[in-house]
Amino acid sequence: MSVEEKYNRGNYFEDLFIGREMIHATPRTITEGDQSFYIALTSSMYPLFCNAEFARSIGFKRELINDLLTFHIVFGNSVPDISLNAIANLGYGNMKFGVPVYPGDTITTTTIVIGQKESSSGDTGVTWVQTKGVNQHDQEVLSFIRWVLMNKKEPQNITSLDSVPEIIESVPSTEFYIPDALDLSQFDPIYTGGQWFWEDYEIGERVHHVEGVAIEEAESQMAARLYQNTARAHFNAHALTNSRFGKRVIYGGHVISIAKALSFNGFENVLKILAFNSGNHTNPSFAGDTIYAWTDVKDKFTLSRNDVGALRLNLIAVKNLDPLKEEIPIRINQTNGRSAYHENVVLDLDYTVLIPRKR
Amino acid sequence: MSVEEKYNRGNYFEDLFIGREMIHATPRTITEGDQSFYIALTSSMYPLFCNAEFARSIGFKRELINDLLTFHIVFGNSVPDISLNAIANLGYGNMKFGVPVYPGDTITTTTIVIGQKESSSGDTGVTWVQTKGVNQHDQEVLSFIRWVLMNKKEPQNITSLDSVPEIIESVPSTEFYIPDALDLSQFDPIYTGGQWFWEDYEIGERVHHVEGVAIEEAESQMAARLYQNTARAHFNAHALTNSRFGKRVIYGGHVISIAKALSFNGFENVLKILAFNSGNHTNPSFAGDTIYAWTDVKDKFTLSRNDVGALRLNLIAVKNLDPLKEEIPIRINQTNGRSAYHENVVLDLDYTVLIPRKR
Amino acid sequence: MSVEEKYNRGNYFEDLFIGREMIHATPRTITEGDQSFYIALTSSMYPLFCNAEFARSIGFKRELINDLLTFHIVFGNSVPDISLNAIANLGYGNMKFGVPVYPGDTITTTTIVIGQKESSSGDTGVTWVQTKGVNQHDQEVLSFIRWVLMNKKEPQNITSLDSVPEIIESVPSTEFYIPDALDLSQFDPIYTGGQWFWEDYEIGERVHHVEGVAIEEAESQMAARLYQNTARAHFNAHALTNSRFGKRVIYGGHVISIAKALSFNGFENVLKILAFNSGNHTNPSFAGDTIYAWTDVKDKFTLSRNDVGALRLNLIAVKNLDPLKEEIPIRINQTNGRSAYHENVVLDLDYTVLIPRKR
Repeated sequence: MSVEEKYNRGNYFEDLFIGREMIHATPRTITEGDQSFYIALTSSMYPLFCNAEFARSIGFKRELINDLLTFHIVFGNSVPDISLNAIANLGYGNMKFGVPVYPGDTITTTTIVIGQKESSSGDTGVTWVQTKGVNQHDQEVLSFIRWVLMNKKEPQNITSLDSVPEIIESVPSTEFYIPDALDLSQFDPIYTGGQWFWEDYEIGERVHHVEGVAIEEAESQMAARLYQNTARAHFNAHALTNSRFGKRVIYGGHVISIAKALSFNGFENVLKILAFNSGNHTNPSFAGDTIYAWTDVKDKFTLSRNDVGALRLNLIAVKNLDPLKEEIPIRINQTNGRSAYHENVVLDLDYTVLIPRKR
Repeated sequence: MSVEEKYNRGNYFEDLFIGREMIHATPRTITEGDQSFYIALTSSMYPLFCNAEFARSIGFKRELINDLLTFHIVFGNSVPDISLNAIANLGYGNMKFGVPVYPGDTITTTTIVIGQKESSSGDTGVTWVQTKGVNQHDQEVLSFIRWVLMNKKEPQNITSLDSVPEIIESVPSTEFYIPDALDLSQFDPIYTGGQWFWEDYEIGERVHHVEGVAIEEAESQMAARLYQNTARAHFNAHALTNSRFGKRVIYGGHVISIAKALSFNGFENVLKILAFNSGNHTNPSFAGDTIYAWTDVKDKFTLSRNDVGALRLNLIAVKNLDPLKEEIPIRINQTNGRSAYHENVVLDLDYTVLIPRKR
Repeated sequence: MSVEEKYNRGNYFEDLFIGREMIHATPRTITEGDQSFYIALTSSMYPLFCNAEFARSIGFKRELINDLLTFHIVFGNSVPDISLNAIANLGYGNMKFGVPVYPGDTITTTTIVIGQKESSSGDTGVTWVQTKGVNQHDQEVLSFIRWVLMNKKEPQNITSLDSVPEIIESVPSTEFYIPDALDLSQFDPIYTGGQWFWEDYEIGERVHHVEGVAIEEAESQMAARLYQNTARAHFNAHALTNSRFGKRVIYGGHVISIAKALSFNGFENVLKILAFNSGNHTNPSFAGDTIYAWTDVKDKFTLSRNDVGALRLNLIAVKNLDPLKEEIPIRINQTNGRSAYHENVVLDLDYTVLIPRKR
């Protein structure tokens, strides 16, 4: 049969040349059904995303779609073109959260390739991409850079590509999007249960999130599928039998969701995520792992309005170890003189949030 | 660092003094997404909660939120303040279901402590609380008493507390809330598939519910999370390795949901729950258990309207044993002369439902 | 106690005489919450079912309910009357998809028995039924024939029933329902990511769907429950310990959903299912199995409109074997001279879809 092969096996390193732009297929309408499922996956309690009355009390039409649900859907939408074959998702940077997403909004995602570096062995390479999600009114809801380790299609053809983009170390406060609609004049902490405002957090402070949550295979699969993230490392038990880990890996974004939901304990008044400065899935998680988390306060900023401030936080998730009982270093020195993440640390997320100031 | 510890470890026996009132944080908007998830967790077929046309045919605007979904969300909302550290949820009583909850309604939950009794050993105690949920119009949707066994913060400080509230043995029919909107003039049993009306049930009758349903860990976790019930016994696989059972315990409310959904077989025409008279999670359930259920008809009442009646029912759930094939006593006499629940009985729920009368 | 037994144990072969009509209880309102759950179960990416803007761009009011979600709910609705006790679901035929289903529509299902054949042993028999779902405006959304192997209530009473209905081998194109609202003048493949139109597919062509997806017990149970499909083979772990397989069987319809979702890869522009010509669950699937799929193009038809065409496809799902790496025959010759399905083939679905033509 001479017919052209119709199926997509995903892109390789060479397919993603610098400057290539992609409008990802299957833009998605995010519904209140998606939000319910997100709550069932995470137990997220931030009231802006599950309480219409609270949302109205601070200026919005109704509850918003959870920032991370938007992130997962934008990210998942880029997977078929970017990372279906990725060996590893190495990191995120310069991630900015834009206009609020409401149930019923439809998000379209585009990506441009901004960097590529072949590995010294020549058989793989790292690709940097900038991905952006916009709503049906073409307003930006999210943009970020990520970089992925990919296989080459033709390992023997040396490309010598070595173009690494500069990534801002942290998103500057001038780039934070603060919704115009936000009006904290009626903000009532009874909704959040939070005692702590922007002024109460000190740089260097550590806040433990106390609880531990196990992750099941069915949860990880349904999370990734809800986001239409089809990366095979999360689904193909049969093929993965012969992989490095021998089994499915939990979608790293699900660990972010779990850790962020745990962080409600101690950050109840946080309203929205403004930015991810940098994020790393430092070790894989597997079904059956229990995730704990803590937050270190890295920095604080005043903003152009004096009713809210920003906190730059370092959210650390660890597996199978209670950091309240057994304090561990985030990184350890190896015998080779280099430092590496502690083997139980599964997430190192440096991000910035919006939180009310005291009145 | 001198900063005050920001995280909440949950309350202990001493924190919940009699008369203490709490407005629980994170009131919740219940959506049709939540209802879909509830159906996926339970297969509940009662049409008032999954058929807009049926609901309209009997006087409502559209389908209502399942009574038990409302219960779980009100209950879950109280967990962070009441039972995060509970050793055991001992029982419920005097539970009254109020105005119908529609998709989109927002439920706020408050609790008042009404009793405390220190255990003889002094290291634990039982606390009785009255919890109430209201909608965004401040109409009561649910109220109940529950009592929990809690650890003391300072076991060596003997409180000698011994104040046990009186709990009504069954909710009197004068306190039943029957929605004004309910109009059974067009009630058509074709919607329910039910042949049996109030008149057809006899006191003392036993109705088996035939089917058995296994519970998976992912289902239990997602159920509890959907209700934002963060009690660690359902989630922290790591810490529970060293607990009494060595593993996670299924959220007891999920067993109520499963048993109630099974009870559709034989009680198809039941419209709503009016009250829980008393409820006990008599033994724990674990992932992999198969739940069966039967109902004993305890009592019947006429009401102020003659188109509906009330049935007082005893819903019994058992695990890993088919009660149609192997009849067991609910309680057995132990060698010490006391009686205890049969080890396979996991739920003993005495509750009252609303059901149409024959025309 | 002389009270009549109230519970339903399901129908047996003798209960379903030819000509018997049943209006199944508990018609169901399908909501956008159900659709979200369906996406989480399948990762279905066909944009007509998850993108309101795309749906509007081709003439609909908003996104439609996924064809297979409608199928599962209609099918599930018939289970308590037809197949609660079925030994096996043998096949489907003459299945026609009718008017589009929107979130909020309520589907009522009816069935008529059209054939019965006692097995030679006399203890079982096959029953053929025709099932139909209509929306709240009494418009047909789905109709199909299925046949099930059932136990007899009284195996010793030989009925000699041998009335096998004729089932059309494939649904003729004159019976396809093409929505009047469909307007492809603004169809933009950027939404689907599809490069291939009706003209591009050749009869005899094979399209692999590349990915493999594992199925978890919790997913299978929640899928069947979402559809209120209570067939005990999917739920009763306890009773099934002593069954032929010793465990729960994945709901066969879930395998159809998984395979259809995988088939997006290569058939991105497919709009809707027009018909199932015949469908067979050729082998059972169990939790932990990984499902792969491919499609063979069987036939193509022009239609009364020249903006769309129909493709008759053979969707094959296999378990625990990657058909891209290890090509297998669908059927194999057994030593007894008969042919049988390859033991890894779990689904053989002959169906017809609607797809845009080139402009």
